[in-house]
Amino acid sequence: MSGEGGAAAGGYTGTERILALSDGVFAVAITLLVLDLLPAFGAAARPPALGAFLHDKLASYLSYVLSFLTIGVIWTNHHQMFTQIKRSNHVFLLLNIVFLLWVAVLPFPAALLARYLGQNGPDHKDVVATFPAGHPLFESNAAMAIYAGTYVVGSVLFNAVWWYGIRNRRLMGDDTDHAAVRRTTWSYYVGPAAYMLDLVLSLFSVGAGLGLFLALAIFYALAPLPSMNRLVAPKHARV
Amino acid sequence: MSGEGGAAAGGYTGTERILALSDGVFAVAITLLVLDLLPAFGAAARPPALGAFLHDKLASYLSYVLSFLTIGVIWTNHHQMFTQIKRSNHVFLLLNIVFLLWVAVLPFPAALLARYLGQNGPDHKDVVATFPAGHPLFESNAAMAIYAGTYVVGSVLFNAVWWYGIRNRRLMGDDTDHAAVRRTTWSYYVGPAAYMLDLVLSLFSVGAGLGLFLALAIFYALAPLPSMNRLVAPKHARV
Amino acid sequence: MSGEGGAAAGGYTGTERILALSDGVFAVAITLLVLDLLPAFGAAARPPALGAFLHDKLASYLSYVLSFLTIGVIWTNHHQMFTQIKRSNHVFLLLNIVFLLWVAVLPFPAALLARYLGQNGPDHKDVVATFPAGHPLFESNAAMAIYAGTYVVGSVLFNAVWWYGIRNRRLMGDDTDHAAVRRTTWSYYVGPAAYMLDLVLSLFSVGAGLGLFLALAIFYALAPLPSMNRLVAPKHARV
Amino acid sequence: MSGEGGAAAGGYTGTERILALSDGVFAVAITLLVLDLLPAFGAAARPPALGAFLHDKLASYLSYVLSFLTIGVIWTNHHQMFTQIKRSNHVFLLLNIVFLLWVAVLPFPAALLARYLGQNGPDHKDVVATFPAGHPLFESNAAMAIYAGTYVVGSVLFNAVWWYGIRNRRLMGDDTDHAAVRRTTWSYYVGPAAYMLDLVLSLFSVGAGLGLFLALAIFYALAPLPSMNRLVAPKHARV
Repeated sequence: MSGEGGAAAGGYTGTERILALSDGVFAVAITLLVLDLLPAFGAAARPPALGAFLHDKLASYLSYVLSFLTIGVIWTNHHQMFTQIKRSNHVFLLLNIVFLLWVAVLPFPAALLARYLGQNGPDHKDVVATFPAGHPLFESNAAMAIYAGTYVVGSVLFNAVWWYGIRNRRLMGDDTDHAAVRRTTWSYYVGPAAYMLDLVLSLFSVGAGLGLFLALAIFYALAPLPSMNRLVAPKHARV
Repeated sequence: MSGEGGAAAGGYTGTERILALSDGVFAVAITLLVLDLLPAFGAAARPPALGAFLHDKLASYLSYVLSFLTIGVIWTNHHQMFTQIKRSNHVFLLLNIVFLLWVAVLPFPAALLARYLGQNGPDHKDVVATFPAGHPLFESNAAMAIYAGTYVVGSVLFNAVWWYGIRNRRLMGDDTDHAAVRRTTWSYYVGPAAYMLDLVLSLFSVGAGLGLFLALAIFYALAPLPSMNRLVAPKHARV
Repeated sequence: MSGEGGAAAGGYTGTERILALSDGVFAVAITLLVLDLLPAFGAAARPPALGAFLHDKLASYLSYVLSFLTIGVIWTNHHQMFTQIKRSNHVFLLLNIVFLLWVAVLPFPAALLARYLGQNGPDHKDVVATFPAGHPLFESNAAMAIYAGTYVVGSVLFNAVWWYGIRNRRLMGDDTDHAAVRRTTWSYYVGPAAYMLDLVLSLFSVGAGLGLFLALAIFYALAPLPSMNRLVAPKHARV
Repeated sequence: MSGEGGAAAGGYTGTERILALSDGVFAVAITLLVLDLLPAFGAAARPPALGAFLHDKLASYLSYVLSFLTIGVIWTNHHQMFTQIKRSNHVFLLLNIVFLLWVAVLPFPAALLARYLGQNGPDHKDVVATFPAGHPLFESNAAMAIYAGTYVVGSVLFNAVWWYGIRNRRLMGDDTDHAAVRRTTWSYYVGPAAYMLDLVLSLFSVGAGLGLFLALAIFYALAPLPSMNRLVAPKHARV
């Protein structure tokens, strides 16, 4: 089902179409996270006791909030990327689809985390593997490590999309602020390293893994603020 | 995955991107409400008797209609907000994502209400807790209180988004009707108080809780009408 | 959460925002129809035999195709409505939300039809009720009647939205073709009557109910063609 | 619910509305693929062992990646189609809805493939049918053949939409590159034949069927590249 339809325009097109599909996938994936909270469809005649049901979902609430906020922050960064990248070509389209494949799968590690977060009791079956030094790997550690590992992959993909777009100024607009692009590029490099560290931490402590993950979400949410606030002052003055 | 891409424009951008994600999350969340009505996937060879199946879903129909209309009214108010707020910055983006986190979770309290609305029979297990005065808290009361409580949180978040946008006219357009903004601000203040009252009522009477909730939905649906009708007259004259 | 934000513009706004939410709800509802085809989540170690599984889903395929095409045709008509209706006000917004409430619920009657279409065997439990004349109402007849009845409601709602929009030319553009609007209004009147007839037919014969329903979908899909083809000729000449 | 609203404009309209629904259906269908990975809703008190759970999902990961990438590539081709097709009429709208019916059903063959890919052991029940020459048709072969067969249908529908649009230049823009359209038309013809070959191969070897399917996805993803790269050179020179 290939085509050369876009060739007439030199293979370059605008980014509206990419953003339409991307926003759709982000919106659906982020909203499907709620499925993990819902009671089983086709319930029995008598639902479980409400208090116990709500208590059993504690890990699901945590996973929902952590995943929703993180995906939301990634969405803001995905859109900020498109304040610099103004054109698209076929390779960029394909790279973005691979990135969306990753976005759409995020409810999966979120559900694993919700289901296995509490599985590190004395029960022998909770142990997935034993490290060389005899340290047991509980299911809770493995689920948190898988969760962090998913974001290692995602931050690498995000870097690949960005790198392809700015390489030789391939897809950038003419009025680009090159110093800002360089700073953005460096800030993106932090992602893979930080999530890899989180993966390793998670193998030893679920709490440390969760804590660093939350800290990274807050860091990425707040990182663009300083540059903004610097620039807000004259704006306030004008008003 | 942070970036400073938007900094070149002074940290301010239009609101199209926010509306694209918001409309997507609203559309998906509001449509996922139907999941609670569907028969269990992977049914047995012989489905349950149709009449009994439909009858067991009575609370689900009520919860579906109540939730759909309320979310729909919130969507109209969210969009009306953007007739005054014309610009966006990073903090506003983050506040809106937290608000969308709340929108996306709404199928959860809706499903709880549907499942536990009928659980206030003489069965001892239906009692979640006992108030100091010996009044039993049935599961139906608790589910209705959780449902109302969700909207306490939502109306606070809605006020926060609005307050941040209009504070110092930060994100407003130049042609703002300041009297209308003040009236809007006061009408938004009603939300948290009214839903908190509904939460307390629900603890004592599910019917009163449901009734006030429905009344609030109708109130918010019809509240913008007087100002509109005042202004419709000249329009009719022109036609 | 009400507001008077839109009042400044006389209570009238464009229709882009309505179309964004409507297209979202249509897209999600029409795509959720596939859930009824999917194997149960969390399957057993050994899935059922493939041939038997596919055979058991025969009614689901029929319901999927019938529902998808009908919703698709309604979407085309909903959009054609907006070639005449160019403005919106708060009442119109609310009417459209009630219409979307109906769109979003469509996977429910579709699932009922899929599940109960084959339930009219000699099994006594299949009989939902007995008519005065002693005619038994099988579950298959009841499911088909509910399915048709849903579209009675929908076509009434569709007429209400249309009627409100064209009444006194309230929301129409200035370049309206009034003869076309009158013909459209008459063709919309057919809907409630035809679907009501289908409901009654379904009580006596599932086949007749299905057949008329399919015929109506084809009729509504093809009805706009004559006027279009009349106008296509000069276009061809130009090319 | 038919209308003649669009007739005033000669039955021709722009393509924005088609793209809005199409992008919505693509985004939802592609994101629903993740449902097959999720643990069963309403899990038991103790989830299954994590390692075994992840291992049981191996075929689901394969099906997810294969289906997501293929649907993504089809989306890029659907959009490239609209760089040549600039107008729409009612027949084109209907053809596109039938195509979307096919897009929305794709999670179904993906789930079948995931569930039955491993069912070709010595177990007698795995055999769906026996070919005349005594060759057994395992469930895994049948599932792969159904998967490929779905794409035979899809590529025929895709050709029909394209063929209707370019026939007599009915819906094309005025600045069409006719040589490019002819090449595109020929490349689209490859689809039905290639997927039919894949269907036949799948009956004899699941591995060969999977391999050809993956090769086709890569071929269609990369096919537009040569023409693009030819044209990129001057761009690079300019920069």
